[in-house]
Amino acid sequence: MIAEKMKGMVANSSAIRAMFEEGNRLAEIYGAENVFDFSLGNPNVPAPEAVKKAIIELVSESDPIVLHGYTNSNSGYADVRETIANSLNERFGTSFEGKNIIMTVGAAGGLNVILKTLLNPRDEVIAFAPYFGEYRSYTNNFDGVLVEISPDKETFQPKLDEFEQKITAKTKAVIVNTPNNPTGVVYSEDTIKKMAAIMEAKQKEFGTEIYLISDEPYRELAYDGVEVPYLTKYYDNTIVGYSYSKSLSLPGERIGYLVIPDEVTDSETVLSAANVANRILGFVNAPTLQQKVVAKCINEKTDLSFYDRNRETLYNGLLECGFECIKPQGAFYLFVKSPIADEKEFCSIAKKYNLLLVPGSSFACSGYVRLAYCVSYETIVNSLPKFKELAKEMKCI
Amino acid sequence: MIAEKMKGMVANSSAIRAMFEEGNRLAEIYGAENVFDFSLGNPNVPAPEAVKKAIIELVSESDPIVLHGYTNSNSGYADVRETIANSLNERFGTSFEGKNIIMTVGAAGGLNVILKTLLNPRDEVIAFAPYFGEYRSYTNNFDGVLVEISPDKETFQPKLDEFEQKITAKTKAVIVNTPNNPTGVVYSEDTIKKMAAIMEAKQKEFGTEIYLISDEPYRELAYDGVEVPYLTKYYDNTIVGYSYSKSLSLPGERIGYLVIPDEVTDSETVLSAANVANRILGFVNAPTLQQKVVAKCINEKTDLSFYDRNRETLYNGLLECGFECIKPQGAFYLFVKSPIADEKEFCSIAKKYNLLLVPGSSFACSGYVRLAYCVSYETIVNSLPKFKELAKEMKCI
Repeated sequence: MIAEKMKGMVANSSAIRAMFEEGNRLAEIYGAENVFDFSLGNPNVPAPEAVKKAIIELVSESDPIVLHGYTNSNSGYADVRETIANSLNERFGTSFEGKNIIMTVGAAGGLNVILKTLLNPRDEVIAFAPYFGEYRSYTNNFDGVLVEISPDKETFQPKLDEFEQKITAKTKAVIVNTPNNPTGVVYSEDTIKKMAAIMEAKQKEFGTEIYLISDEPYRELAYDGVEVPYLTKYYDNTIVGYSYSKSLSLPGERIGYLVIPDEVTDSETVLSAANVANRILGFVNAPTLQQKVVAKCINEKTDLSFYDRNRETLYNGLLECGFECIKPQGAFYLFVKSPIADEKEFCSIAKKYNLLLVPGSSFACSGYVRLAYCVSYETIVNSLPKFKELAKEMKCI
Repeated sequence: MIAEKMKGMVANSSAIRAMFEEGNRLAEIYGAENVFDFSLGNPNVPAPEAVKKAIIELVSESDPIVLHGYTNSNSGYADVRETIANSLNERFGTSFEGKNIIMTVGAAGGLNVILKTLLNPRDEVIAFAPYFGEYRSYTNNFDGVLVEISPDKETFQPKLDEFEQKITAKTKAVIVNTPNNPTGVVYSEDTIKKMAAIMEAKQKEFGTEIYLISDEPYRELAYDGVEVPYLTKYYDNTIVGYSYSKSLSLPGERIGYLVIPDEVTDSETVLSAANVANRILGFVNAPTLQQKVVAKCINEKTDLSFYDRNRETLYNGLLECGFECIKPQGAFYLFVKSPIADEKEFCSIAKKYNLLLVPGSSFACSGYVRLAYCVSYETIVNSLPKFKELAKEMKCI
């Protein structure tokens, strides 16, 4: 009875979600402290105290008709958009105005808005494996075709030669996600410059516009002082999707934004269309209270040390067990090589030790598993003996 | 550069929104108190005090990791869904469980979720004119075809003979909206029974499933003691979309739900698919804090007397001016006959008096204009002399 398009979707429903729900089931049987759930990017760092303070102030001091009402524009409160534009300008030397910012229902909402805005059926969207599996669903929502660039399993940096070959006259967008989910890799400035040059040349060659969509929920999570380049500065047709899910630990509140700079070709039309797409997709506007909250918390910093300690402890612990993994520079994931070719089988074996991992095939990169280390430090520490047992069974040590 | 589908959308961008933005512009010139903006369904009743109390309690007493985190299921918090199911059961004698409820980003989000779940390209969705213009956009999002039933301009009740004729083997869904936007009409139990009988017969005739989608943002707004039938009791394949936008005055917060009863054919599959659709459309889950807020405020009542006073005052005032209008039994709209055939022209003339009305063509019913009377009582009272001047110019009096 359901739509044909949905049938496959339901059958292959998110492996990440399935694992997360399995984690809750196991927690009920064994107790939450004995289940090591590395499946979902649900931050275990509480939202900063400033968020609570902002919410209480807002509901105590604002007119509820304005605070909880429709925003004048579907793109959000003018003052919030301006605050965000100014903050980006200060941090990255850009020159955005409020009008360049569209408040969205998280980055997932923002990506759907911009793909709805841009894609005609059969337009191609390029993603670099491994990539967040939802990009395929989002592209499919608008009858686009996801074109995959195969993973470079040495470095997990984008394979630029294959990228150049796979751009066609139908290429409408390229999605990059740096710091990357699931590898934690950050693309260097040099890589970005090379990508931009390729895209510029291909735009000229085909007489088309190719939009670079930068999905940035992990922008604030970069370790060891590594710089995450702000992509609008390298390529004119760049659109940024941001989320406060990780930076303010608000994933359930669905708050983020799109940046559509003036440098984007026909930016006014793209902005108007995105404003309409935000409405007709049913978002209408980003949740209003949370719009005001993020503006009030604009200078709040993510507790990087929490994630960094987890990263170091888990990374070193897994290496000691004999597992192979590149050290991530950002985000809160480790992408670990499966000791056996079939990483789904490996995930099943790990589950016997109450270790919940996500198979790399969910990210178009089989032979690997993803661990989300946004869990409590205790979970990391207590999981290590289990990983040791698992490593023994897998004959890694 | 934007998608072909979006080009027309941007050109004809919501007349309601355009009028609302025009209202803000005029308010800056003439002062808000001298602009009578009847364009948007943005309630002027503040959210009940209980909402503020609930928010403060929740952020003060809950673990922020849970309160602002992803919900275990994309369909929402289990306890919230159960609270809503129980409340519906008490009020309407239904027998829903938590699993039948999917929390959504408002009713607009819910409608998109269920249409994504059900529609194949070229499937037909029936709506009764006049109807909320966004139904056309939502149907178009999934390449469905909106089939219009012409308006009965005597009563604004659905034309059941035309309805029966226009159901085909491609009819996948029928959207009803009672109390109705823009007319304020409530469909009687007798009408609902007749509609259900027609749909049952057509399902048999074509061997298809035809879903009745009840869009109910105005359920709580019914006057003069009129009953609004709960449609799941009359027809098995009924799905309800609800929003707290009007009942708790939270339109900007984007919080509502879908009800998919067990009686729906293959309801488990429909529920699973809707859960997935909620995720992949980019909603992910309804905003978490607001989920908890509506559960805490489950027994809050809308301040009906506020709207009722506006209704009586504006209705009687317009009649005195010589305008024609049926008296609405629900919602917060008056659907007034334009004194001239071209109601867009009438709206332009009204704007000279700082009266902002929405043309009926936005609701597939030209020759009429919609007035949203969810404004302050002062706005109603102060607008009446302006309506009198307008009536004189239009030679109504």
